[in-house]
Amino acid sequence: MNSLNKLWSKGKPLSEKIEAFTIGRDLEFDKILAKYDVIGSKAHATMLAQTGLIEKEEGESLIKELEDIYQIVILEDFEIPEGFEDVHSWIEAVLTERLGDTGKRIHTARSRNDQVLTDLHLFCKDSLNGLISQVENIALLLVDQGEKYNEVILPGYTHLQVAMPSSGGMWFSAYAEALADDLIMLQAALKVADQNPLGSAAGYGSSFPIDRDITTKEMGFTQMKVNSFAAQLNRGKLEKTITNTIASIAQTLGRFSMDVCLYNSQNFGFISLPDELTTGSSIMPHKKNPDVFELIRGKCNLLQGVPFQVTSLTNNLPGGYHREYQLLKELLFPAINDMVSILDILEFAVSQMKLHGPDTDEEKYKLMYTVEAVNAEVMKGKPFREAYKIVGQQVESGEFQIKPGEQKYTHIGSIGNPGFDEIRKKITTTGD
Amino acid sequence: MNSLNKLWSKGKPLSEKIEAFTIGRDLEFDKILAKYDVIGSKAHATMLAQTGLIEKEEGESLIKELEDIYQIVILEDFEIPEGFEDVHSWIEAVLTERLGDTGKRIHTARSRNDQVLTDLHLFCKDSLNGLISQVENIALLLVDQGEKYNEVILPGYTHLQVAMPSSGGMWFSAYAEALADDLIMLQAALKVADQNPLGSAAGYGSSFPIDRDITTKEMGFTQMKVNSFAAQLNRGKLEKTITNTIASIAQTLGRFSMDVCLYNSQNFGFISLPDELTTGSSIMPHKKNPDVFELIRGKCNLLQGVPFQVTSLTNNLPGGYHREYQLLKELLFPAINDMVSILDILEFAVSQMKLHGPDTDEEKYKLMYTVEAVNAEVMKGKPFREAYKIVGQQVESGEFQIKPGEQKYTHIGSIGNPGFDEIRKKITTTGD
Amino acid sequence: MNSLNKLWSKGKPLSEKIEAFTIGRDLEFDKILAKYDVIGSKAHATMLAQTGLIEKEEGESLIKELEDIYQIVILEDFEIPEGFEDVHSWIEAVLTERLGDTGKRIHTARSRNDQVLTDLHLFCKDSLNGLISQVENIALLLVDQGEKYNEVILPGYTHLQVAMPSSGGMWFSAYAEALADDLIMLQAALKVADQNPLGSAAGYGSSFPIDRDITTKEMGFTQMKVNSFAAQLNRGKLEKTITNTIASIAQTLGRFSMDVCLYNSQNFGFISLPDELTTGSSIMPHKKNPDVFELIRGKCNLLQGVPFQVTSLTNNLPGGYHREYQLLKELLFPAINDMVSILDILEFAVSQMKLHGPDTDEEKYKLMYTVEAVNAEVMKGKPFREAYKIVGQQVESGEFQIKPGEQKYTHIGSIGNPGFDEIRKKITTTGD
Amino acid sequence: MNSLNKLWSKGKPLSEKIEAFTIGRDLEFDKILAKYDVIGSKAHATMLAQTGLIEKEEGESLIKELEDIYQIVILEDFEIPEGFEDVHSWIEAVLTERLGDTGKRIHTARSRNDQVLTDLHLFCKDSLNGLISQVENIALLLVDQGEKYNEVILPGYTHLQVAMPSSGGMWFSAYAEALADDLIMLQAALKVADQNPLGSAAGYGSSFPIDRDITTKEMGFTQMKVNSFAAQLNRGKLEKTITNTIASIAQTLGRFSMDVCLYNSQNFGFISLPDELTTGSSIMPHKKNPDVFELIRGKCNLLQGVPFQVTSLTNNLPGGYHREYQLLKELLFPAINDMVSILDILEFAVSQMKLHGPDTDEEKYKLMYTVEAVNAEVMKGKPFREAYKIVGQQVESGEFQIKPGEQKYTHIGSIGNPGFDEIRKKITTTGD
Repeated sequence: MNSLNKLWSKGKPLSEKIEAFTIGRDLEFDKILAKYDVIGSKAHATMLAQTGLIEKEEGESLIKELEDIYQIVILEDFEIPEGFEDVHSWIEAVLTERLGDTGKRIHTARSRNDQVLTDLHLFCKDSLNGLISQVENIALLLVDQGEKYNEVILPGYTHLQVAMPSSGGMWFSAYAEALADDLIMLQAALKVADQNPLGSAAGYGSSFPIDRDITTKEMGFTQMKVNSFAAQLNRGKLEKTITNTIASIAQTLGRFSMDVCLYNSQNFGFISLPDELTTGSSIMPHKKNPDVFELIRGKCNLLQGVPFQVTSLTNNLPGGYHREYQLLKELLFPAINDMVSILDILEFAVSQMKLHGPDTDEEKYKLMYTVEAVNAEVMKGKPFREAYKIVGQQVESGEFQIKPGEQKYTHIGSIGNPGFDEIRKKITTTGD
Repeated sequence: MNSLNKLWSKGKPLSEKIEAFTIGRDLEFDKILAKYDVIGSKAHATMLAQTGLIEKEEGESLIKELEDIYQIVILEDFEIPEGFEDVHSWIEAVLTERLGDTGKRIHTARSRNDQVLTDLHLFCKDSLNGLISQVENIALLLVDQGEKYNEVILPGYTHLQVAMPSSGGMWFSAYAEALADDLIMLQAALKVADQNPLGSAAGYGSSFPIDRDITTKEMGFTQMKVNSFAAQLNRGKLEKTITNTIASIAQTLGRFSMDVCLYNSQNFGFISLPDELTTGSSIMPHKKNPDVFELIRGKCNLLQGVPFQVTSLTNNLPGGYHREYQLLKELLFPAINDMVSILDILEFAVSQMKLHGPDTDEEKYKLMYTVEAVNAEVMKGKPFREAYKIVGQQVESGEFQIKPGEQKYTHIGSIGNPGFDEIRKKITTTGD
Repeated sequence: MNSLNKLWSKGKPLSEKIEAFTIGRDLEFDKILAKYDVIGSKAHATMLAQTGLIEKEEGESLIKELEDIYQIVILEDFEIPEGFEDVHSWIEAVLTERLGDTGKRIHTARSRNDQVLTDLHLFCKDSLNGLISQVENIALLLVDQGEKYNEVILPGYTHLQVAMPSSGGMWFSAYAEALADDLIMLQAALKVADQNPLGSAAGYGSSFPIDRDITTKEMGFTQMKVNSFAAQLNRGKLEKTITNTIASIAQTLGRFSMDVCLYNSQNFGFISLPDELTTGSSIMPHKKNPDVFELIRGKCNLLQGVPFQVTSLTNNLPGGYHREYQLLKELLFPAINDMVSILDILEFAVSQMKLHGPDTDEEKYKLMYTVEAVNAEVMKGKPFREAYKIVGQQVESGEFQIKPGEQKYTHIGSIGNPGFDEIRKKITTTGD
Repeated sequence: MNSLNKLWSKGKPLSEKIEAFTIGRDLEFDKILAKYDVIGSKAHATMLAQTGLIEKEEGESLIKELEDIYQIVILEDFEIPEGFEDVHSWIEAVLTERLGDTGKRIHTARSRNDQVLTDLHLFCKDSLNGLISQVENIALLLVDQGEKYNEVILPGYTHLQVAMPSSGGMWFSAYAEALADDLIMLQAALKVADQNPLGSAAGYGSSFPIDRDITTKEMGFTQMKVNSFAAQLNRGKLEKTITNTIASIAQTLGRFSMDVCLYNSQNFGFISLPDELTTGSSIMPHKKNPDVFELIRGKCNLLQGVPFQVTSLTNNLPGGYHREYQLLKELLFPAINDMVSILDILEFAVSQMKLHGPDTDEEKYKLMYTVEAVNAEVMKGKPFREAYKIVGQQVESGEFQIKPGEQKYTHIGSIGNPGFDEIRKKITTTGD
């Protein structure tokens, strides 16, 4: 984006423009992949040595240098040195500089394609495990908040109309249980990511007698992506699977944020947010806007569109690698980063949020007790449809009187018995 | 759509227009839900009787009549009788007509919201199980076809350029293995669907002392959607989860279809299709167009957009039911139906498809053996990067000679060892 | 969809399944296209006769019969007779039955491709003109309502927080002015649709010496889509252009509907809707839900996704016709129909809607006058930033006193001078 | 993205995280907006002085300093000084530093909301004018290339099957004519952007007696966005309108790129690309991959998804500003930049591309002349449907003999008369 209005002006040489166009944001993402590239290269070197494709000593030298490189790439301020178009060529250059011909042999029986795929699978596994842990934490926190605010009566809405009594316990823990469903999908995505593509080369395997079981085991993959062409077909498919699960979390959190923004409005007034999460206006001195939740809502909405962008990029393309698959990184990496940051901030935000019950004596809230009144009639023997009519007429004529608390909610999942522990159990057992 | 240009003309009465606008395609979908509505109502009646909310005899009468209604609604030509706006009101009317006040009691402690949600969860479970079975079949069939055409050499492409040797075995079974990943996501979606929402009423539970464990067990759900508000939040979320998995299958099959259409072009000529799957042109007497695969491709592309339509409908809406959730059925039902029909037709199509190897002596296909030539040099001791340069120069100068078969592909997932059984095992164990 | 769970069962013969799969909803849409097909055929017959490709008498006979067929196809209950797969083959069959060989000659120098394209262009022109007229009406109606409710003070919100005073005049007429922008795009789409594709045949023109100027003039097209391949490229592009403009209208109306649903909530209470547009609840006797506006909102959201479905279907396909372009009709026709029906219902809904000012003495609404207080200080000479601080401190300390009406809004586009006539002028001149 | 895996770790202070989360990429985009912010501020100062809201001398001082600031912000290496959260606060700070109280008065009768909106409208106008000029150039270049390669016969495809003869002239200029349609939509979008929102303040106007005609004229807007609330409703709507037109161009260029990639495949071999636009493979020494066109295709696909992201962000939000509208810049700015760069590179790529006719004697290409054979029979008097059957039987029995050139294509838009000048005229007159 620095290039906006600049690089594309007439003055720049063509080669510079094409380089900028083709490299894109790759260096930025390669910094993150560097670590996984080293892990994959180590496994590959181990396999090459064990199968005799390189000398045992060569394997040992390669591994030693790769371990050294690993320490460099995990540093917070690691940058790919200038002059290298990606992290892969830089690592190979370092190995060759240090080990001569042996360094060059690291690329034996490997293609850039399966190398990048391997990096991505390793990165996705790590990212999914991280997200699972963050989502579990937020979900458990929401249950805790539900428990804390269980006694706060909130109006429950349908059609944005005041409908029936709800509660802080119901409201908070509902989003926790929704996250438990998202965790099921995250666990499934983890299974999909946990397959070793190394050895598939450019998507058609290798004529070297490699042993893919070795690399699978070395890198800690549960199983192999068997078919080499299938491994390549996974470009776009892995990204879609993962961004779909991120989109699921985003769906849950986006709707939660909409509730928060609405409840924070003076027309509801059920919630107050810590000062850190609100901002003022440049012209209205009284405003406390829920900017952070609005941005979470917005980012969650954008995240839900990412899998569609993955589809747009890849659909109708015949099998086999195409260069634009590189752009998948521009979709996947920011999506993961955005969700990590949202969950990070939510941990603070949810824990600090304060819930207030409205004044249930207000005229507009009284009607949320009509169902209880109907039910009371039914319990006395009236068929439901008749009881409904009677109360309806009371409402119509203005006779309806609030009778909160007459009826108890006892069943699991109701305001009288929200089932916090059952929800907690769901959250912590989705991987089983 | 019959209404196009007609209903919306000035002549029609407003009430008729509003009815058409609000009912939409609901009657069409309700026919399919009818069966599940009866199952859910039976479970609800059983629970009402067991908890004493209705008399034991009332429960028995309701169940008897519901079993009778069940036999009606599963008939192929079942239609909801005129004058009823949905299947739920029709069933209630039948029960009331037959049982008087007892019939009316079926709606005790239930809302239209949890009733529809229950129908949807039951329908989704059935549909997912059906899809899982169909996908397994197609996947195994693809492996069989791979085995049958394993010896056929195909050029493998990257960037749509001839790259390396592939094979019929590799090509067919790759899509089988991709489907195994889709099965993982389908199984996870099944877990999400397999939760009983009945008892959540309008999303805020019921003040009747219902027992949700009874209905959960009666309907064969593995677990309960605990929180009543969470059950309601699931509108849009369940549909998104399921259409996402359908989109995953569609991604796999769409790309397979693109390969088929391309390979069926005279410029490739690798495939021939049975006459049933091709059509001619109204002006070109020589054409045999792969219409069925083009339509599969097109439908698969549209199916990949459905989850985003679900998102569009529901994002930024606060919690609680909103009327447009009804439109989710117009997204979910056709998506399932389309995928069922695609898989049904593919079973025939894949089994009838014939694969032909191209003439590998053709100039354009010779270059697919350059990697083998490089690898042969490497096996003789040259570092990869140098061997690459040597062969590159041969290609440049026109000296490169085809040497197919000199190198063997031995590793799993290569054309010499495609791993059919390993892929079969993946397909049949995704539910474990 | 009737086929759901039925056709795809094992019992049905393959041919029936494939027919259902390939024909899809085409007969349904062909009924609508029939009229345009006759118009196009008449123009084509005229041209064939004028260029001598058929005899003059043949041309006259064809035109006479086509005029006869026209009277049939415009009947409200017209159905394509059984046994015909589309309207084109039926019309040709009728002509052949009546005129023998002359009837067959209608397809001279024409392909099914340019025939369908011509139908679509004619249909789109008509539809766009219809939409333009409907949108203009609604927009003018919104200005009228704005004028009627100009004195009603509403709180203006930012961040869903009470911000500054707004008004019924401001609120209603804002959506009118937004529609004026949509009209600009509709007029542009009309220009795109208004190009004659007839003569492009299958996308590569015809070796007959046809005269495309004649058909262009006969059908009333302003200009020709010149290049035959460009005419074919338009499949997917025309549909996207038109559904984009429908999506624009949908964006405006969807947001309007959200405002209506929100303002109809008891927590706002600014609007009341006629009974025809609200419904009750099956368990809550007090509910009056804004179902029609919720469905408008939902349909508007789905309509905004249609252009992306068009993209999904067509992107990455090489030039030239592909069979799935047929599915574009399943996107275009319902989109137009839905928007026509939304606008039709809105005409009633907007005219019947009643607006109520809230009690501006309520504590929560008082703060909307802080900006006026700041501005008053500025008018007395204080720099803005200082005045802002002073009023901010008053708000903080609870000293801030409401002073509505002290400041006048005089500039155009403010609540004191909403510019109704300027907006009306915009609406009625977008085609200039 | 630098923050990936870093900022969100536990160690960072909350305030830093929230700042990163809320500011996002705004500083990056504000650099681009800086120029427009100065232009808008100058117009605002002029108006304030003319209406007497500030002293005449104050207005003169403000304008003088703003002209000075303008020279700074248009420098290529301009950066917003550290410590400022956006360009607006920096400019105000500079004015205040230099002019004291007078500097502070620049924000009189203005809100951050209408200030940003004004910047965006000015930026969009400039960007659209730039795009229109680039698209015209590419379109004219495509016509030129069509004229240059007019004699090259290409097979025309339908269903990816060899269909009828096409030509270089037809192929190149078709995309030019498609771009002419895109230009129609771009011109319409320009009309939408060309409306002055300044004076709408936070969406509810100002209680100062401002004169919006002055600022409209000063900034060169053709008209005013009248209604203040409508101006605010435009957030999301303006971005959607513009990204829709970019998506239209992307649709055209994406399909062109797919053709290029396909025709560059050895299985077609119709095109050769300059070395600058192709790259090799890390393992296949013979490869010349069309990476640049693949990336154009990919970016064009992603660009087609951007309007959907705009929709996702804004749909179902009630009227009035919401903080996530800030994220619209992250959609709009890169979309414009990407399209500018694509068009820039295409100018080189299209001009350097070389087209080769295939050997039309190849068996597979002979059948493209069947329609001509049919037409020849028709010209001799046979009804079309019969001639079709005769040639069809010849093809079936292998008797069909190629007879290219027997029939002439004479009508406009055919290979014999591509209508280059008519297309050129369309391209250059879309703004009329």
